[in-house]
Order: sequence, then structure tokens, then C-alpha cells
Amino acid sequence: MSKRLLIVVVEPDPDRAQPIADGLREAGDHDIRIIAEQSGLARQVAELRPDVVLIDIANPSRDILEELALASGPAERPVAMFVDRSDEGMTRAAIESGISAYVVDGLRPERIKPILDAAIARFHMFQQMRAELAATRAALEERKIIDRAKAVLMKARGIDEEAAYALLRKTAMDGGKRVADIAQQLVMAAGLLGR
Amino acid sequence: MSKRLLIVVVEPDPDRAQPIADGLREAGDHDIRIIAEQSGLARQVAELRPDVVLIDIANPSRDILEELALASGPAERPVAMFVDRSDEGMTRAAIESGISAYVVDGLRPERIKPILDAAIARFHMFQQMRAELAATRAALEERKIIDRAKAVLMKARGIDEEAAYALLRKTAMDGGKRVADIAQQLVMAAGLLGR
Repeated sequence: MSKRLLIVVVEPDPDRAQPIADGLREAGDHDIRIIAEQSGLARQVAELRPDVVLIDIANPSRDILEELALASGPAERPVAMFVDRSDEGMTRAAIESGISAYVVDGLRPERIKPILDAAIARFHMFQQMRAELAATRAALEERKIIDRAKAVLMKARGIDEEAAYALLRKTAMDGGKRVADIAQQLVMAAGLLGR
Repeated sequence: MSKRLLIVVVEPDPDRAQPIADGLREAGDHDIRIIAEQSGLARQVAELRPDVVLIDIANPSRDILEELALASGPAERPVAMFVDRSDEGMTRAAIESGISAYVVDGLRPERIKPILDAAIARFHMFQQMRAELAATRAALEERKIIDRAKAVLMKARGIDEEAAYALLRKTAMDGGKRVADIAQQLVMAAGLLGR
């Protein structure tokens, strides 16, 4: 964490905000914003676009916990949540909401830095897996649509697979487009034309 | 955690094993084995096949940390690690080794249960993503190999794509095999035959 981070702390209680701010100052020279008002959190977070969100809920209900986790955008940035108490269902709900750290009864200034480090590392790991999954899914979908487009061309023009692919590829190159996009457009058009 | 779990605790120091065992007893009626000897951990864990592994390292080096994490099989079961101190690099290495919980200076009996819950929930989430990624990758690979096999058949027999796929499918069904496996065998054989 050598770079300066914008860290949003969601904490309605000033007495509890203090140890968190202390811990964050220990963690590095970061830009810290305390949000005391939980309503409208999603909008505030979306506007601030923080690098990290820390949420402290003294006495959480599962609904509040899920609402705050979601509002913090746990897929876009590391979100660490501190609660005073939890049960198995709440812990599972918190983890499944996608937050990067969930700490029960462990809020001490000197523990903030390692928790922040862990949340950031875990977030990056998840992002990498998510990106890999998205890329693999996209490759599979592209392959399917290119296959369908080839079949359309082979039937319409009475050409073989190689020629069909060459035609798709040439059309894409001539138009500065991707083969998958041309294939998508062709399949859509063939559908409309009833071919 | 209603079901009884076999929990392996890796802890050379009996004084430190005590609070962990206390916390685990609090967490439920589990079967707890303490392993004091860290050498040969991978073999011991592989033999015991525990549901969860808890590792406590008082004064970790990064090498020891990675070695113990790896030996515990973090892709096969939730692994939670407790350390007295950490730095950013060690925290990142611990998270990237795939362990489900990494707790710095937070070992108290009453905190074991929520940490165990969180580790189990996070492990399942990861498993799900890993399974999804593996399935998507397999689907993409199968599609590629079936495409190659179709091309081999189309060329060798002068048939069109549909007929080639029908032939693969019939061969698979007749032999009680999957189309992708037949395709794989055909591509391999065609390579050997120089076709």
C-alpha cells in the first residue's frame, strides 16, 4: 500500500470512528473520509469512488449488513466490515455479499493495517478470478456465435467451413471490426430475414 | 456448522493450543486433533483428510507461512491461519496461497467461532467460482476439440459439417462415450496417421 488511497469509513458513532482513523493513519498516508449517515450510502460511494471502504456496525442486523455491503460496491473495491457480534448465518451472508474482510469483535487500531492489507489482497485475488471467468465465458460465447454464423454462410452460399470463416474474417478486417461482432450481426440479420 | 467436523490444529506450543481448543469447543461438538510437529504436515493432513485446518504461527517467516499453508491443502478445505505479527508482503503471500482466513494478532477463544464460520463460507464461495471456471474452461476446450475433429472428418470424407458432427455423435453413442472424448481420440489418431 505505497500509493495514497481514498478510504471511506462508514461509521455513525464518532467515538468508534476514532480508533479506525487511528489505525488507518498507522497504515499509511491515506485520504480518509468518514460517512456518518448510512442512508444514501450507495450514491455517496458511487460519487466518491473510494479505493477501499471500511464499514463498522456495532450491533448489526442481517438486513442492515447486506444493505451496507451492497451499497459499498464490493465487486468494485475492497470492502472490510467490522461488527461487534455475529452468528453463522450473518457471517455467511456477509462473505457471500462479496466483501473482502469480515471481522467480528476485532476492532483495535493496531489490527486495522493487516486487515486492510488482507482485504486488498483478497479483493485482487477475486478480481483476477472473476476476470478469468468472464474472459473464458466470453471466449466460449464468441466461439458459439462464430460457429452459428459459419453455418449460416455455409448454407446460404453453399461454401465449406474454411471459406465461411475466411469470409467472416475478411468482412471483419475490412470494417475494422472483430470476427465475433460480425458473426453476431450476421446471425441477427439472418434471423430477421428468415434465413 | 451443525455437522460434526474433523478439525486439525497445527500448533507446536501447548499453551497456545489451549485457547484454540477452547474456542473450537465453543464453536460446536467437533473432533479436534492437535498436530504439534510441523514437519511432514502435508502427509499428516493428507491422511487425516480434515474438514478444516487451523494453523497458529507465533512468529512466522514468509517461507514457513507459505510452506504450512500449502501443506494444509487450502484448495481442498478451509484453512485458517493465526499469526502474531505480519507485514504487507506476508499478508499478501498468505492470501494468495489460497487460505480462507488470515488473522493477525487476533487469537482469542471467543473469536474462533466467527473466524471458523467466515473461513468455511469463504472457502465454499471460492470453490464455487473455481468449479465454474473449470466447467467453462472445459466447455471451451471441448468445443475446440470437437471443431478440430469435425474438420478432420469433413476433409477425410468430403462431408459437410452437419454430417461430420452426426458421425461423431453416432460413434460416441454407439460406444457409450462422450462426443468430446471421441473427438479427442480422432484428432490424436489423425495426427499419428499424418492425416
